[in-house]
Amino acid sequence: MSVNMQRVKTLINHLATISSEPHQLTRLAFSAEDLIARDYLLEICRQQRLKVRIDEIGNVIIRRDGLHNDLPAVAFGSHIDTVVNAGKFDGPLGTVAGLEILLQLCERQQSTRYPLELIIFTCEESSRFNYATLGSKVMCGVSNQADLARLQDKNGIRLATALQQIGLDFQRVDQAKRSAAEFKCFFELHIEQGPRLENENKTIGVVSGIAAPIRCIVKIEGQADHSGATAMNYRHDALLGGAELALALEQAAIRAGHATVATVGQMQAKPGVMNVVPGYCELLVDIRGTDLAARESVFSALQQKIDEVSRQRGLQIELQLISRDQPILLDPSMVSAVEQATANLSYTYEIMPSGAGHDAMHMATLCPTAMIFVPSRRGISHNPLEHTDWQDVEAGIKVLQAVVLQQAELI
Amino acid sequence: MSVNMQRVKTLINHLATISSEPHQLTRLAFSAEDLIARDYLLEICRQQRLKVRIDEIGNVIIRRDGLHNDLPAVAFGSHIDTVVNAGKFDGPLGTVAGLEILLQLCERQQSTRYPLELIIFTCEESSRFNYATLGSKVMCGVSNQADLARLQDKNGIRLATALQQIGLDFQRVDQAKRSAAEFKCFFELHIEQGPRLENENKTIGVVSGIAAPIRCIVKIEGQADHSGATAMNYRHDALLGGAELALALEQAAIRAGHATVATVGQMQAKPGVMNVVPGYCELLVDIRGTDLAARESVFSALQQKIDEVSRQRGLQIELQLISRDQPILLDPSMVSAVEQATANLSYTYEIMPSGAGHDAMHMATLCPTAMIFVPSRRGISHNPLEHTDWQDVEAGIKVLQAVVLQQAELI
Repeated sequence: MSVNMQRVKTLINHLATISSEPHQLTRLAFSAEDLIARDYLLEICRQQRLKVRIDEIGNVIIRRDGLHNDLPAVAFGSHIDTVVNAGKFDGPLGTVAGLEILLQLCERQQSTRYPLELIIFTCEESSRFNYATLGSKVMCGVSNQADLARLQDKNGIRLATALQQIGLDFQRVDQAKRSAAEFKCFFELHIEQGPRLENENKTIGVVSGIAAPIRCIVKIEGQADHSGATAMNYRHDALLGGAELALALEQAAIRAGHATVATVGQMQAKPGVMNVVPGYCELLVDIRGTDLAARESVFSALQQKIDEVSRQRGLQIELQLISRDQPILLDPSMVSAVEQATANLSYTYEIMPSGAGHDAMHMATLCPTAMIFVPSRRGISHNPLEHTDWQDVEAGIKVLQAVVLQQAELI
Repeated sequence: MSVNMQRVKTLINHLATISSEPHQLTRLAFSAEDLIARDYLLEICRQQRLKVRIDEIGNVIIRRDGLHNDLPAVAFGSHIDTVVNAGKFDGPLGTVAGLEILLQLCERQQSTRYPLELIIFTCEESSRFNYATLGSKVMCGVSNQADLARLQDKNGIRLATALQQIGLDFQRVDQAKRSAAEFKCFFELHIEQGPRLENENKTIGVVSGIAAPIRCIVKIEGQADHSGATAMNYRHDALLGGAELALALEQAAIRAGHATVATVGQMQAKPGVMNVVPGYCELLVDIRGTDLAARESVFSALQQKIDEVSRQRGLQIELQLISRDQPILLDPSMVSAVEQATANLSYTYEIMPSGAGHDAMHMATLCPTAMIFVPSRRGISHNPLEHTDWQDVEAGIKVLQAVVLQQAELI
């Protein structure tokens, strides 16, 4: 079955124009622009009489019945919310690919034995609530209402309020949880967001497992002092404590191996002016790996360094754990189905782990799950320079289409 | 000669009530409250028939003739303008101390051979025009009308307008410049604004020099990447580059000795979120010292580290110099006069540099100058918690009185 690449390009390029900022792509979860993007896709679905449902947390479920609707669904999908100043492929690629597969079937009036579900997960990015893959966590029962009660964005808007603003009721979010019996399998196509496929000159990444993050906020209390009048040995400089922690995390991740990574995404000091020694500093920390022991070794190294730095610099340091997801090994039979489909289509491929977290890692707790990667130029993502060649986009969609139609049993 | 501490307390406490804000002390330069405070002190001077003159930039000069009025003046003073939400000692202490010395002489009808001048410098704090020690800079010819033309406050009010509102003419400000021949010497009593005297359990700081800052902004360009999908060895993390520079600055300041200090007041990353390797980071840097070579060694160390970090991490780092004022070594004979007066009064003391800038640093370009510090509790200043014990205030005034009367030759 073919793929209409003209339509795919139009959809991805149009989604890239729906932004809250004039000269960059920023479409945070639950924002007005997030809804505009959603409605743009849903209008296309309604024209094809696909069944559309929005669940209690805001996930969109687009269903095409199979010949046997009591059978579990063959599901696939991704997300359309973005980070601040994003690229256009992270999320939209897998979403538009899934839509293209449904549209091809509709236009050709072809049926599958199993029902198909395209899922557009809500709030995959952590950029708004410092909380990633919110929609899939709720759908898979990995998080529930109680876990989410504390979430608020940088403007102090609580998740409950954000949901209310788009007509959802926070009291009902747990009803978005679905059961394993509803799904036969799940597939997600995504850009790699790393440089491995490009470096290895391969078209398709057959994903074997998904690294999961430990995320935490480190809050450092020192003492604000006059920057001219306070001798170096009298200082309790919160920013310097933070600098030591950031560098220690980097070293710990390098030592841990197994492709473990650690990132301090922000390190903000208060009062944050030129003539005052910082009395407070806050670090946003993200530690990831597919190897649980390696990842935990980095977290332990952070805790040890916190003890050392707080003692040596006379700082009070609090480590606030935000999330500690489990790394996931994907289902071997589904990984092998993707590998086989890729080989049948004669694409070069690499079996590899995903360093980034994805909604697929939660779906993997419900049903056999696999992921398909296409190359990211120079590995750049979460950045306007994010780029995947259209021929690689087409390759990814064709592999997704092949495994979906095989699992759904095209008639 | 004695000091009327009851009067000193009354004056300092009353000045602390003259504020533009109801529940805090805020008395910005050239404001209505600044004038009320000035007039409160001038009324006391007029009752004692002291000669009062307000110069073209708004400095107040209160003169008591000596027996030989062709001799240069023994001058002393400080300021009465404050930062936003200030403490009550920064500025008023040295001003009220000087007034107390004049009032004692008037009440006792005692004479000095040299004339005395109490100077209340205008606009010492940078809080209104982002420009510190304005009055003394103009008096000492360090700044002139051309330099000041660009100044405006946060409300867009130009200095020229602010001067006009209090009856001064911006076109005439250069006439406030005075010559070296007019002064025999200058002394300023001030709170330390740092914790050294308290920590060392000393009553008096005999100031040996006044540090001046090098201020710069370091702009680091790296590459924003996905925090999960980008292996550690592929990263160009701008924040980690910044962390290395901040720690290197600390080490360089410690190595430099001579009480040199270096501060990174802020270190802000972009995009600054949990799931993106920072692609940009900006540091606000302040390096101060009284020893020029030591201070320059820290600046050189920063430049070297910038080269090293940019090479090792693949970052582009730009160093933008904001200011590079000259540190001042105070006049050895005046420093020694203060030390001797302190010893004669049996106060414990420490010879130390001033980390903060003061009007005295400009007066030092005109005439032999010294400064006297008294302890600041916990080193806190520019803050309502600013505190100095009254017995330390008294000690400071007595030392100032002793050196002034010695230099002026009390009859």
